[in-house]
Amino acid sequence: KLYSVGVIPGDGIGPEVMEEGLKALKALEKIHGGVSFDIHSYNWNCDYYKKNGRMMPENGLDILAEHDVILLGAIGAPGVPDHISVWELILPIRRRFQQYVNMRPAKLLRGMVSPLRYKEHADLDFVIVRENTEGEYSDMGGRLHRGTPYEIAVQNNVFTRFGTERIIRYAFSLAEESGKSRIIGATKSNGINHSMPFWDEIFKEIGQRYPHMETNLYHIDALAAYFISKPETFDVVVASNLFGDILTDLGAAIVGGLGLAPSGNINPEKEYPSMFEPIHGSAPDIAGKGIANPIAQIWSISMMMDHLGHRDLGHLLLETIEDVLEEGSVRTPDIGGRATTSQLGDAIINKMIGK
Amino acid sequence: KLYSVGVIPGDGIGPEVMEEGLKALKALEKIHGGVSFDIHSYNWNCDYYKKNGRMMPENGLDILAEHDVILLGAIGAPGVPDHISVWELILPIRRRFQQYVNMRPAKLLRGMVSPLRYKEHADLDFVIVRENTEGEYSDMGGRLHRGTPYEIAVQNNVFTRFGTERIIRYAFSLAEESGKSRIIGATKSNGINHSMPFWDEIFKEIGQRYPHMETNLYHIDALAAYFISKPETFDVVVASNLFGDILTDLGAAIVGGLGLAPSGNINPEKEYPSMFEPIHGSAPDIAGKGIANPIAQIWSISMMMDHLGHRDLGHLLLETIEDVLEEGSVRTPDIGGRATTSQLGDAIINKMIGK
Ligand SMILES: CC(C)[C@H](C(=O)O)[C@@H](O)C(=O)O
Ligand SMILES: CC(C)[C@H](C(=O)O)[C@@H](O)C(=O)O
Repeated sequence: KLYSVGVIPGDGIGPEVMEEGLKALKALEKIHGGVSFDIHSYNWNCDYYKKNGRMMPENGLDILAEHDVILLGAIGAPGVPDHISVWELILPIRRRFQQYVNMRPAKLLRGMVSPLRYKEHADLDFVIVRENTEGEYSDMGGRLHRGTPYEIAVQNNVFTRFGTERIIRYAFSLAEESGKSRIIGATKSNGINHSMPFWDEIFKEIGQRYPHMETNLYHIDALAAYFISKPETFDVVVASNLFGDILTDLGAAIVGGLGLAPSGNINPEKEYPSMFEPIHGSAPDIAGKGIANPIAQIWSISMMMDHLGHRDLGHLLLETIEDVLEEGSVRTPDIGGRATTSQLGDAIINKMIGK
Repeated sequence: KLYSVGVIPGDGIGPEVMEEGLKALKALEKIHGGVSFDIHSYNWNCDYYKKNGRMMPENGLDILAEHDVILLGAIGAPGVPDHISVWELILPIRRRFQQYVNMRPAKLLRGMVSPLRYKEHADLDFVIVRENTEGEYSDMGGRLHRGTPYEIAVQNNVFTRFGTERIIRYAFSLAEESGKSRIIGATKSNGINHSMPFWDEIFKEIGQRYPHMETNLYHIDALAAYFISKPETFDVVVASNLFGDILTDLGAAIVGGLGLAPSGNINPEKEYPSMFEPIHGSAPDIAGKGIANPIAQIWSISMMMDHLGHRDLGHLLLETIEDVLEEGSVRTPDIGGRATTSQLGDAIINKMIGK
């Protein structure tokens, strides 16, 4: 089967890790005769913005809509404000393509040691399902009395029943499909007294349809602390846009860092292309040095293979990443080694082909 | 000097830990002839609510206003919704008394081991300054089209220049006074595009007046991860109401748990009483067993002594807590021992008197 893949390498270390990602796609074609990828690369990034005054062409989203999936490296560069780079590229893609699930595993890979003193591999293996289209990132609000002592800024968190139901429903069905039984909803209904009680109601409504599941609503402050003290009690955590953002970085931290953490921006109905990207940013401080960790990008491709229905290939890719980490001689500096980005990419790809 | 102290033991383990706190106050009177406390206890809690239909009398805030300081145990009980217990007692006190600083140390005490594998005592010693009166806990917003598929809930985050300036100014002057040079502002201006850019602007404006300080704005997701990976780089972290709430629980987790974590709700101008309370909740699951850790409450009293200008006594109390933890034989179950609440309280108080 031929898949059309839209690729946005982006800024900073984005293109460096994407190169390894593309090598992984080639390797997968070699391994599985029936799968091939038609790659279309787009140079939409902060340089493009500096030249053209926009992050992507006016019909950029229409162009992307033609692909089966999208791969993103990382976006953001010094001198270009985030409200440009993020709000004119990443967020429009997530929203236009109804990628309402942002799925982020928090799993300690073989070969890695958790920074949590008392936690082992079996303790760190859960998934965070983050709402990805509304909530706290709403663009609604503004400022009044600018520059005066009476200035105020208001930002609206907007939670719709439609948006809240679909993400919580997804989390429950994901748990069911993967044979997991514990679902935690992240809330803060004791302090945030309109949107979060609404979230809680919907969580409970949907939870009632799954009487065999163990469901809990935890306040985000306590939940963040539980990520440290009892991550072994989690299977699936479902959270709003902002809470999910915070929890997924925290999840990445407790399993060894952002260099490894992948994500999928998923449209479960497959009406639109889904997008796979590392959680890390463009890291301008190490860009151009060839030392960025490519694993987050390669693992994102493993998630992409799962999404496309090739779970065997997704599994193979992740297993191989773990083999290489466990073997331990080829590691980038962020995980305690001296290898370059391409050395680590090659090690993974060669090992996979050799299997 | 005689201080008038309003005491609200509260619910669950609140009264249990407060008993130890009151013992500590008595001990301080004994040690320092010139200090005494006039204690007024109020039974305003969820039981009071069940009897009277409100968390405190109508003139409750006026009564509290007469005290020099307030001590709170913990509030919350099964069967009473948080929007009652929290919104009718804790939040009104914080707001009416302009306790706009919520100060929460993240400090690994002597005798405690951090759950972070690679971190030692010197790595974990910073302060989180949380805005305590506005921001994400605004009570502004509501719901529309209830019960229909088109229902929405909107919650307004409200940031005023007045409120934002005063908390950030406080953080900078705290750093200056305590000889610290690194200040981090928690933001999310890349995703939340009205309120957080406003926060950033004010942080930078005030930062410019402190050219010798090292200032950084970190996005809350990355910052949460840095609490795990590089807490040793923090001196003072200043955050909005919600972000501060999350970061302080996380701060408590990396230094050994909520059983130890104190907080001060401070009105720096001393126009109104400040309130000191453990970060932990009322813990209905262990209430009545006499095994709650009293250290968060006693440490909160140490912060209260600092606030009242008796830094020597605040220091003595905290040092003694550390001595007892280091000695190690008297510990409550949450920190690996078998002692009761009052055994641990007594151990601290007797050691302090014996000094
Ligand atoms: C009870 C709750 C509203 C409160 C808060 O979030 O402020 C608590 O978590 C705290 O941190 O004091
Ligand atoms: C760039 C930023 C807006 C983004 C987010 O918060 O969604 C990033 O942190 C992420 O998690 O993908």
